[in-house]
Amino acid sequence: MNAPLASHLLPQFEQRTAPPAMLEALKARFGDRCSLALAVREQHGRDESPFDVSPPDAVVYAESNEDVAFVVKLADTHAVPVIPFGVGSSLEGHLLAVQGGVSIDLSRMNKVLSVDAEDLTVTVQAGVTRMQLNNEIRHTGLFFPIDPGADATLGGMSATRASGTNAVRYGTMRENVLGLTVVTANGDIVPTGTRAKKSSAGYDLTRLLVGSEGTLGVMTEITLRLYPQPEAISAAVCSFPTLEAAVRTTIQIIQMGVPIARCELLDANAVRAVNRHDKLTLREGPMLLMEFHGTEAGVKEQAELVQEIARELGGEDFQWATTPEERTRLWTARHHAYFAALQMKPGCRAVTTDTCVPISRLAECLLETIDEADAAGLAYFVVGHVGDGNFHVGYLIDPAKPEERELAESLNLKLVSRAIRLEGTCTGEHGIGLHKMGFLLDEAGPGAVAMMRSIKHALDPKNIMNPGKIFAL
Amino acid sequence: MNAPLASHLLPQFEQRTAPPAMLEALKARFGDRCSLALAVREQHGRDESPFDVSPPDAVVYAESNEDVAFVVKLADTHAVPVIPFGVGSSLEGHLLAVQGGVSIDLSRMNKVLSVDAEDLTVTVQAGVTRMQLNNEIRHTGLFFPIDPGADATLGGMSATRASGTNAVRYGTMRENVLGLTVVTANGDIVPTGTRAKKSSAGYDLTRLLVGSEGTLGVMTEITLRLYPQPEAISAAVCSFPTLEAAVRTTIQIIQMGVPIARCELLDANAVRAVNRHDKLTLREGPMLLMEFHGTEAGVKEQAELVQEIARELGGEDFQWATTPEERTRLWTARHHAYFAALQMKPGCRAVTTDTCVPISRLAECLLETIDEADAAGLAYFVVGHVGDGNFHVGYLIDPAKPEERELAESLNLKLVSRAIRLEGTCTGEHGIGLHKMGFLLDEAGPGAVAMMRSIKHALDPKNIMNPGKIFAL
Repeated sequence: MNAPLASHLLPQFEQRTAPPAMLEALKARFGDRCSLALAVREQHGRDESPFDVSPPDAVVYAESNEDVAFVVKLADTHAVPVIPFGVGSSLEGHLLAVQGGVSIDLSRMNKVLSVDAEDLTVTVQAGVTRMQLNNEIRHTGLFFPIDPGADATLGGMSATRASGTNAVRYGTMRENVLGLTVVTANGDIVPTGTRAKKSSAGYDLTRLLVGSEGTLGVMTEITLRLYPQPEAISAAVCSFPTLEAAVRTTIQIIQMGVPIARCELLDANAVRAVNRHDKLTLREGPMLLMEFHGTEAGVKEQAELVQEIARELGGEDFQWATTPEERTRLWTARHHAYFAALQMKPGCRAVTTDTCVPISRLAECLLETIDEADAAGLAYFVVGHVGDGNFHVGYLIDPAKPEERELAESLNLKLVSRAIRLEGTCTGEHGIGLHKMGFLLDEAGPGAVAMMRSIKHALDPKNIMNPGKIFAL
Repeated sequence: MNAPLASHLLPQFEQRTAPPAMLEALKARFGDRCSLALAVREQHGRDESPFDVSPPDAVVYAESNEDVAFVVKLADTHAVPVIPFGVGSSLEGHLLAVQGGVSIDLSRMNKVLSVDAEDLTVTVQAGVTRMQLNNEIRHTGLFFPIDPGADATLGGMSATRASGTNAVRYGTMRENVLGLTVVTANGDIVPTGTRAKKSSAGYDLTRLLVGSEGTLGVMTEITLRLYPQPEAISAAVCSFPTLEAAVRTTIQIIQMGVPIARCELLDANAVRAVNRHDKLTLREGPMLLMEFHGTEAGVKEQAELVQEIARELGGEDFQWATTPEERTRLWTARHHAYFAALQMKPGCRAVTTDTCVPISRLAECLLETIDEADAAGLAYFVVGHVGDGNFHVGYLIDPAKPEERELAESLNLKLVSRAIRLEGTCTGEHGIGLHKMGFLLDEAGPGAVAMMRSIKHALDPKNIMNPGKIFAL
């Protein structure tokens, strides 16, 4: 990997503002469900990334597939961008209206359409959030495991190919979306996939759309795989003398094929942040936060094996979260880590990294990165889905100090360069968005990106679907 | 699902014969590795489907990515089809040169390029077969689980999104291909994916190419996930008084979340065929052939639970294959089922079905199908990856009797229509090929097929990559 990595500077985008005729047509159909108010537009033109707000020209609150199709057809007619919006938890600038256009807010499309418990599947509207889904299906004895930090919508999670803490055992959105309904760039409402567990019927449109970040169509309905709630669950934290010991423990767990359900790393900074935010008393050093799923006997067997590995590498005794309440408290704290860390430096924003490497390269990738972060002197924290080889460094920057952002970006660039050299990826679960377009080219190479652009052009010839994301066309 | 299902009759294809200048250029580069001999061409213009042979104009034995790229560039210049060829085990006519052109035989690209045991990945050339791969990695303690009946190449398996007996636990090629090297329609050699376990970096070209049946490019190298050989394996057969009892047992196993590694159904005809072919003495009635992977205790626990479920539904006591040799003998027999069945009716060919439905619909789908088959009076057998909701009926037809083929096709059409009505797919693992183009339209609908065609046109504007498969362009 010799290509120089791209700068984090964004290109200048051509503006394609929605014309008055289009806004009038939206108002005529949607009335109060179409807002031109600046506050609403600004809320829909930013996300959790450190980018500045870039508001759309209008926000439409869609309530049906037909609503979405209406907006897209109008956008097609006027060659104006459309940007799907869930809860705004993107970390990579996906939601910014860099060319203007209309934000389609899907949060009112929040119905669980069909629970097929006997098939371990569910079909939801794209605005259903992961926590809402699990609440609504709890009575079935099933659960949906994918859990990014935020309570994101299933639409947003599909669009970014999200994962989270359970992916080490249950896979990511890539493995867990069976089918979709998508509104294509010409406004057609198209179903993809079936409820069968596998299929060889033609091109895998579902997998092509999952991770396409709204650039190939608006996903409006999603059929997902569910899993039986395990007979037994146990969770434990284990503190280590060094980050390296925690990472080497993880590598051994994975290489031995232990079917661990969650294996999360927190550095001392992250532990300190969640202790303060969630009023916990975890030991403020490097830590693995683990969960085991299975039968009573299976869980015991897994935990004993992992405890043995950890002990050999200097890990302390497991501290068990024995009740469901304790367990929930622990994982809720883990999910709060990002927001907890932001509160450690008032007024800051985070530049978040998202590399993922083959498990044998994890120690090298992570430890060199930490050395660089320590040397740079910028506040940071580390959390990681380390069982997958995926970790996040959050650099806490003062948005008023451009030099801090530049320093964070230069550290990110070094990390991504390292991850690509180690046969990994610049993004394990957050997506490319605005932030990583240069990295994508370095990682995938010009041939693969040319194929992606050809597909984009074929399915969205006017470039109206979330333009400027993944690649600046 | 009201659309009438398509006929099995093939469209008339325009011929695009390789011109003399192209054949001379191939001969000049490849010498003896380019054959124009009729016998060789005929061998490469047929497969295990019941279609008549349709030979290519030439066969090239490729030995490198550059060889493949050379052929494709030449094909691009002359607008002549190229058809990748592995071992010829397709069941759906994928290998027939329906428009003429050049068959690229990849069987000499049979090197295991890189075993990364510490990451549970391997990279192979596309001509490596599944059995060769497992032989070559045995010393690492890892294995590759995907096992279609034939000893197919990993290239062919990727192209058809194949699965097999282990898919119920380990997934299909969809879940187990991490990355590819593909020669695109303009002759570029393009890598897709990385060795990281997950990624959100741009469109999922790997998953788009897996299952594309050679119509978007020629896959030449494949990076696969491997799995640790389980600490304990046990296999058992269980006979049932009826097919229904065997199917209902399967449904309960899956719905209870038992992590069974293999759960295969054989009807009495299939058992009879494998008994005769492999000199076994299995009871000749409906049977589940199962395997459990895990720790010693875990395997025992799973087997006891499944035995209990089976017993309640009338299953007999498990017969255990206790030694590795017995186990291998049993699974080898299972893999021979297709060829064993062909020998039950000398000179016959098989019309093979491949539907896959949500697990709760399996009993309805399978039992109605068997009733129809019995009523029709055509010889048949049933084998099924029933844990996935996927089963195959093989109708044994005399190729000299068109009425037998027509009867088999009409039964297949009824089955596919039923599977689609039950929210399933016309093909779980064999692909569309020539055979199921009409079914694809019925299943996926015109909107999704239009998207597929747009992608095909964008990535292969001259339609030279295995044309006439998936859809007749």
